[in-house]
Amino acid sequence: MGNGGGRNGARALLEGARQHGVELCFANPGTTEMPLVAALDSVRLRAVLGLFEGVCTGAADGYARMAERPAATLLHLGPGLANGLANLHNARRAGSPVVNWIGDHASWHLAADAPLTSDIASLARSVGFVRTVTDAASIERDGADVIAAAHGPPPRVASLIIPVDAQWSDAPSVPPVAKRSSAGGSARPSGSFELAAAAKALRQGRAGILLGGRALRAPALRAAARIAAHTGCKVWTETFAARHERGRGIPDFPRLPYFPEAAREALGGLAALVLAGARDPVAFFGYPGQPSRLVPDGCELVACCDAHADAGGVLEDLASALGAPAGELRDAARPAAAAGALDVPALGRTLAALQPDAAIVVDEAATSGQAWAGFAAGAAPHTTLGLTGGAIGQGLPCAVGAALACPGRRVIAFQADGSGLYTLQALWTMAREALDVTVVICANRAYRILQIELARLGAPEPGPMARALTQLGPPVIDWVAAARGFGVPGRRVETGEALADALSRALAEPGPNLIEAVLGH
Amino acid sequence: MGNGGGRNGARALLEGARQHGVELCFANPGTTEMPLVAALDSVRLRAVLGLFEGVCTGAADGYARMAERPAATLLHLGPGLANGLANLHNARRAGSPVVNWIGDHASWHLAADAPLTSDIASLARSVGFVRTVTDAASIERDGADVIAAAHGPPPRVASLIIPVDAQWSDAPSVPPVAKRSSAGGSARPSGSFELAAAAKALRQGRAGILLGGRALRAPALRAAARIAAHTGCKVWTETFAARHERGRGIPDFPRLPYFPEAAREALGGLAALVLAGARDPVAFFGYPGQPSRLVPDGCELVACCDAHADAGGVLEDLASALGAPAGELRDAARPAAAAGALDVPALGRTLAALQPDAAIVVDEAATSGQAWAGFAAGAAPHTTLGLTGGAIGQGLPCAVGAALACPGRRVIAFQADGSGLYTLQALWTMAREALDVTVVICANRAYRILQIELARLGAPEPGPMARALTQLGPPVIDWVAAARGFGVPGRRVETGEALADALSRALAEPGPNLIEAVLGH
Repeated sequence: MGNGGGRNGARALLEGARQHGVELCFANPGTTEMPLVAALDSVRLRAVLGLFEGVCTGAADGYARMAERPAATLLHLGPGLANGLANLHNARRAGSPVVNWIGDHASWHLAADAPLTSDIASLARSVGFVRTVTDAASIERDGADVIAAAHGPPPRVASLIIPVDAQWSDAPSVPPVAKRSSAGGSARPSGSFELAAAAKALRQGRAGILLGGRALRAPALRAAARIAAHTGCKVWTETFAARHERGRGIPDFPRLPYFPEAAREALGGLAALVLAGARDPVAFFGYPGQPSRLVPDGCELVACCDAHADAGGVLEDLASALGAPAGELRDAARPAAAAGALDVPALGRTLAALQPDAAIVVDEAATSGQAWAGFAAGAAPHTTLGLTGGAIGQGLPCAVGAALACPGRRVIAFQADGSGLYTLQALWTMAREALDVTVVICANRAYRILQIELARLGAPEPGPMARALTQLGPPVIDWVAAARGFGVPGRRVETGEALADALSRALAEPGPNLIEAVLGH
Repeated sequence: MGNGGGRNGARALLEGARQHGVELCFANPGTTEMPLVAALDSVRLRAVLGLFEGVCTGAADGYARMAERPAATLLHLGPGLANGLANLHNARRAGSPVVNWIGDHASWHLAADAPLTSDIASLARSVGFVRTVTDAASIERDGADVIAAAHGPPPRVASLIIPVDAQWSDAPSVPPVAKRSSAGGSARPSGSFELAAAAKALRQGRAGILLGGRALRAPALRAAARIAAHTGCKVWTETFAARHERGRGIPDFPRLPYFPEAAREALGGLAALVLAGARDPVAFFGYPGQPSRLVPDGCELVACCDAHADAGGVLEDLASALGAPAGELRDAARPAAAAGALDVPALGRTLAALQPDAAIVVDEAATSGQAWAGFAAGAAPHTTLGLTGGAIGQGLPCAVGAALACPGRRVIAFQADGSGLYTLQALWTMAREALDVTVVICANRAYRILQIELARLGAPEPGPMARALTQLGPPVIDWVAAARGFGVPGRRVETGEALADALSRALAEPGPNLIEAVLGH
């Protein structure tokens, strides 16, 4: 089994991955991945265990967003991949580089149609690039190709299906695969043609800019502010951003609204929309009588750089082309913690007031996070990671990955309760790895967005069966108990003062902790 | 939106489903399923909320195994289906009829490639039949076709992808779709040719019978016992059974061993193997130098009925053809509860001693369940539901579904800790629906099977990174706290006496409860 003095396929794959910059593996392995597991120590690849595959894939997404290079996941055949697909969907929409290592049956065992046999490749294709290893001789090359595919451009989810016999068989020494140059954000910057078109559109007036991707970093936001101050154009940020730098010292712009009526109203009257790292905006869902696209008819779209380009440089060039002077930033007011009853505005204000410098806020707070998003413009500088693909259950795993990518920064998992329950197993990995994560559960004890959507249907008052499907109780979830079950200390708060006290303590403590913020109605 | 006096597509689909015998829907809906949610009350379809889609699909599997008709699931686009796929994989391997209703974007919104857009059909195809609704006019027919596909024969997983505009649009009245005749177990019984071949093989000696599917019900097991007593043939039951009736008054046979070396040894020397509701047996995983198939070379295989046939009748006919007299059953000894240290044998003996009459034992106890499987032959008559597809996280959801299908029977979720953590959200549905489920967590605090598999690799002593991936601590999971988080009362036990006391109380209490049985090494 490949132990005859040489190295086996598993070791060859992992050695190659280390050489190509993969340092971390979020793992939930089974029998068909055991040779890879056995090889981990010899190559000093750090493995982090998740109790559920959705934790692993969401963590790999969060890691990639902050580290800008892929971590690997280690998943057990088709069902293991299936459990991780929802967060791979989010990673795909975030443009995150993620490498999946998926074990499969021995190649000769597939024909037996054993219980765990399934169509792994079809599942993997639904989220990105796929390669299937044929034997140990090609495993290192296949592994390098998949890492290269993950880097891009564009960065993406890339999966390697690895029959266990290719892991345990001897792997020949192969000429080293050329190490790829570092990723970096130099993919397809704008050309002079697009810049000229953007400048022309902005000079004509009735123009806007929609920022997304790498245009949500501070340098690009500063350039966008220069342009806005000089031309009077409106600027929005995309509704769900993979990574967005905000807070004092960083220009802030309104998010494009979630509901299409409001988004269309915002964009109404525009003659041109410049897209910097953002796509032609579309509604999140389709509603009766409403078009998918959000820009007005006849609005010109000018794409000046894609999501992964060096948007800061592009927007600086655009500002210079427009002759926009360096502007002065007027910071938003620094919010103060709230007192009294705890509701969505009080929660948002208090979190924004107390979040520390350079925090990473993983925002899966859904309807409970809207007020915070407003107050956070005046908070200490921070980075937000959003729900890019709409597959809920992304927040807690993403926080795990972000914390591992940035060990010096406090991570705040700002988490809707309904969504958090999908992948609460991530709490255990936070405890096991002693990650500096503060989880703030927005306990409105409902799927509030579904209550809003039911009302939007225009149907008669929902019946009790329909209403019950939007309510997270009875029984009420006891998040503090659940967190204790996974080794994370927690505290429940029901007033602004208690929240402020709990947050102040939690954010100063090393390791993970949880605050269940019970929201009044 | 279809409320103009007529009925909309959502209501047409649900009315048709009620007419075709679907009474229950395990739901985790989102925006694209809201018209279906809004229509639930008017058709009096019972909806049971799961906090995670794997709970819904596993519950539908458990319900189908006991009720022998499909429940529906209600899932939110591709990511919702993805979260449910692992337990649909188990349902597929169990031959369970399951109907999935999967909402999708409005048909005209798909081209916008909105954040939640993905390839739903490819995911659904990986587990069975798929139909996509094109408009409200065809929705009732499509719904009936999917229910018919789920019934089979053979019973299977069948998915309906339902664009939200087909739900909200007016649905014309259509001639009622012919109601299918009831399912029942009459699918493809054996013909006289197969019976004669089986009888001949059994008369010649060195023959065995492998029982699976409906041959694991009491009438078939009694017939198999007659045949064995008369011919001296060996009888095994399949390793992972969807539904198996056991206990006092029911003949019991050894399970075909899990590891292929042991299974081949058991089957060694056979000249013929009669398959009654079972497949040609194959190894669960492929290992170096070991074939996939388990029967000896040259062993004749005689398939006398498939998994869904009326195996009791077939085996009775076979017994009569062989002239086997009605036998007398010698029951296995009734086990007594254990005292002292709690280990796998003590746990198994105590559970077998105390489980009540007609219990449904959902067995996802993995390595911790082996001793119980032996003792349970002498337990009160009961039904076991096993992990058919190897996708762990099936037990707790399956218990939810079984309890809803059989409200008069106590369900025991006999649950490995590692596997249980995949879908522990099922605890909340147990509490919400006040289901009579006793969860027994086998807390060995490890992925024991992976420790065994690492050792089987023959590799040197695993390093600390590899070992850590097989250990569920630190931190140790506090199952009692986690269960409390979901509204289920629990108790931790560390001795046989404490387990017996806790079990006696728990099994007599209405509603769900949990026992964390801490296993010594």
